[in-house]
Amino acid sequence: MIRLSAFYNSIFRGTLAALLSGVFAFNAIAQSIKNRPKSAPDQDFMYQYSIIDALMAGVFDGDLTIGQLKKKGDFGVGTFNRVDGELLIDKGHVYKISYDGSVKEVPDSDSTSAAFVKFFKADTIIRLNGPGLTYEKVQEQIRHMLNPNGIYALRISATFPTMTTRAEKPASKPYTSLPEHLKHNQVVFELKNTTGICSGFLLPPYLARTNVPGFHLHYLADDHKSGGHIFNFTTDALTIEVDMARGFTIENNTNAEFGKVNLQPDRGAELKKIE
Amino acid sequence: MIRLSAFYNSIFRGTLAALLSGVFAFNAIAQSIKNRPKSAPDQDFMYQYSIIDALMAGVFDGDLTIGQLKKKGDFGVGTFNRVDGELLIDKGHVYKISYDGSVKEVPDSDSTSAAFVKFFKADTIIRLNGPGLTYEKVQEQIRHMLNPNGIYALRISATFPTMTTRAEKPASKPYTSLPEHLKHNQVVFELKNTTGICSGFLLPPYLARTNVPGFHLHYLADDHKSGGHIFNFTTDALTIEVDMARGFTIENNTNAEFGKVNLQPDRGAELKKIE
Repeated sequence: MIRLSAFYNSIFRGTLAALLSGVFAFNAIAQSIKNRPKSAPDQDFMYQYSIIDALMAGVFDGDLTIGQLKKKGDFGVGTFNRVDGELLIDKGHVYKISYDGSVKEVPDSDSTSAAFVKFFKADTIIRLNGPGLTYEKVQEQIRHMLNPNGIYALRISATFPTMTTRAEKPASKPYTSLPEHLKHNQVVFELKNTTGICSGFLLPPYLARTNVPGFHLHYLADDHKSGGHIFNFTTDALTIEVDMARGFTIENNTNAEFGKVNLQPDRGAELKKIE
Repeated sequence: MIRLSAFYNSIFRGTLAALLSGVFAFNAIAQSIKNRPKSAPDQDFMYQYSIIDALMAGVFDGDLTIGQLKKKGDFGVGTFNRVDGELLIDKGHVYKISYDGSVKEVPDSDSTSAAFVKFFKADTIIRLNGPGLTYEKVQEQIRHMLNPNGIYALRISATFPTMTTRAEKPASKPYTSLPEHLKHNQVVFELKNTTGICSGFLLPPYLARTNVPGFHLHYLADDHKSGGHIFNFTTDALTIEVDMARGFTIENNTNAEFGKVNLQPDRGAELKKIE
């Protein structure tokens, strides 16, 4: 893995610099994981089916089965055909968090219209402690420790006094845009004292249009009784497993609708509103 | 290849619709290539090392050797370390077009800071005939025939009464941005009555920041005595081989500079000026 060393070293320096500069109001510990084999090169790329802008534009059906998706990664986020709920993959299990709040493991025969996955193997573990950590503060601290140009899968474990998530009702044809659909079909969950994992990614600005720049995490409670797309949380302590990817593979949605929607406009501002 | 059929069909319909609607001032023929095996699925993705915005920002060195690049594709465009000339790959041979106008085949030990390649296998052949075709008119007609959301490798063969290209002198450290470097180090070639191939891509708007949206072609004369990054040409007849990709793999530049440059700003307007 000689080719990766320069970039990885610069990240590690960034982490140390951040720790030494005292930018953290909270206690933060970052450990590089050693003596653990790196992922095979072809497993160290993020993979995504379809692009966020196609989902935004209303391409709500896809042809990739969950069985096929599992061959591309054992960890990640996404949605299902008809945007029927929030998708979360952890340790190779694919879960659907539905608008009624229920969580189900999904059969391989289901399909997705958009999903972002990776074979997860942590490079670094970050531990944050301190009273009143919010999602926003956690984002700020993670950004100080990681390189802004890197592609990172993040797996966060914690107990959350509060956790605000959403899931959406499935759409019926003719489909509208995703923001329009969410306006009428989004259900927000205010979870209390829940323990679980956040699965997702921190992505650089150059992946705008294809994916969600910044943080994009879904939640799954350990008891598999709640979850959803994360809007906010509070916590006093988290463990953040970080897996930096070497790159990114985009497979275009093969549904005919993908060829018909207008992907010219920059939907970044619209996307921010619904994230 | 069942999963590809819907999107491919929609493209073929688009082509027929364009032909029937009489949008062409010139004679245009598009043929789907049948009885020819499609590329293996994993060879039907475009691959790129680094991203255009990193090159724009001055990340002029990379760690990918030409030997490694050849394993990712047998066709495409790019540049070399220190932006020392224009890179063109055709049929597995990698050529450097230098600022002095010379063309050399490149040893596997050379390295690239940015390259965009694919294993080329044409799906469709388009023939355009008519006096006074310009690069601009050819772009317009190809756009009518292909899907605006598709990822296409294009290989164009023709005799060109005029062909305007550029190549750049290599940079010295400390590097500036690419636009700044080109301002002082770009050499423009006005070629006459030259026969050769244009190698490159037509990419959708959602690949802005990572690559060049729209057309990006390099030229190589059949006698290997001239070439470069194409600005303009005129011709009376072209054969355009089209290879639609299923997707796109981005491998981040592993040079430490990649982690240091600012990839936040949208460099699209700057990029248009130098293309």
